[in-house]
Amino acid sequence: MLPIVCIVGASDSGKTTFLEKLIPEIRRRKYRVGTLKHDAHGFEMDREGKDTWRHRTAGAQTIGIASPSMLACIRETPAEMPLELIAGRYFYEEDILLTEGYKGSHFPKIEVFRSAVEAKPICSPKDNLLAIVTDDGVQMEVPLFRFDQVAGVADLIEDRFLKDRKKPRITVYVDGKQMPMNDFVKDFVIGGTVGMLSSLRGWKAPRKIDIQIRLEAE
Amino acid sequence: MLPIVCIVGASDSGKTTFLEKLIPEIRRRKYRVGTLKHDAHGFEMDREGKDTWRHRTAGAQTIGIASPSMLACIRETPAEMPLELIAGRYFYEEDILLTEGYKGSHFPKIEVFRSAVEAKPICSPKDNLLAIVTDDGVQMEVPLFRFDQVAGVADLIEDRFLKDRKKPRITVYVDGKQMPMNDFVKDFVIGGTVGMLSSLRGWKAPRKIDIQIRLEAE
Repeated sequence: MLPIVCIVGASDSGKTTFLEKLIPEIRRRKYRVGTLKHDAHGFEMDREGKDTWRHRTAGAQTIGIASPSMLACIRETPAEMPLELIAGRYFYEEDILLTEGYKGSHFPKIEVFRSAVEAKPICSPKDNLLAIVTDDGVQMEVPLFRFDQVAGVADLIEDRFLKDRKKPRITVYVDGKQMPMNDFVKDFVIGGTVGMLSSLRGWKAPRKIDIQIRLEAE
Repeated sequence: MLPIVCIVGASDSGKTTFLEKLIPEIRRRKYRVGTLKHDAHGFEMDREGKDTWRHRTAGAQTIGIASPSMLACIRETPAEMPLELIAGRYFYEEDILLTEGYKGSHFPKIEVFRSAVEAKPICSPKDNLLAIVTDDGVQMEVPLFRFDQVAGVADLIEDRFLKDRKKPRITVYVDGKQMPMNDFVKDFVIGGTVGMLSSLRGWKAPRKIDIQIRLEAE
């Protein structure tokens, strides 16, 4: 699965503004960037009266719209989808996923902390905190960056998660014959498969996965 | 992969309005419904100024937003994504995918034809046309339905694609131990895996798939 880094912080601490600087800095280094916002309350993405909105209002549980340059999809979920599952399912081609929020997750975090907003940071090193981006002289055993040190934060992310990623290997047999796949396709299938399985109970960073599927001929 | 039925027809023939009646009719029969609109020109799904819009404007290639009850995702695509790939990737829990548009695809089609809009239907039986929904007395060797015969169209779709779907089987071994999975999870993993692989060159409705993944310990 692709690496996930959560940009967390109090409301109005400036998470989105910091992401607006960090995203282009990571893209400039030739990585594909995905972002995911955590919204505790609910959001409205579509526009009233549009065809997709009419499909959803009529009861479609998942709706999509596809053009030559973009795909959008909205899915009803009976409960909040685990971050790992969203990452594996929806960010299958990205090199890194930066989230806005998800402070309760176990993934590495960078906190945006503005002293005018809160008295102290919401995370501590035991929350898997990688760094703090702040206007303050916080005392904490993690690297501190000022709001304009975006390249420094990108260096940290690149060194830790993007350089020298170990390549997992995959072999797929279809009716007993090995399926030819280039690296792009291999990454895509591994990412999707591991993304799916890692959301299941009992998953613990295994080394070996073997899947056998038996389909009726269509 | 889940069955796909394309609702096609000229502009203003009433495709969306017909779907607004067909979707609840299929849901009433206890199937999960997904819809996908084909948009030849481009669309704007997000709203200017929202955090997700700011992420995308800053250069994120894929953005998402997740709440306890909904997930939305927008992905940039270098070219139009094939319908099969979208179906496998994004509609992994649905029982059927109804598209609005995709008249050029090889999937089964239902044409909405209104005589006041066009002189004749845009499809013929050789286009994998299942039926026509029309106010006109079209001469064609496929079943004809009036606009209010929504239950009849749903019957056709249910008989043809939703009843008696053969259940595929799956076994997953993680580091040599079989992973326990309930039916829901099995369907989810089979749907995701087959969806991914079926988009690859060389896929031809196989009976047997075996996948071996070797990961480095994390």
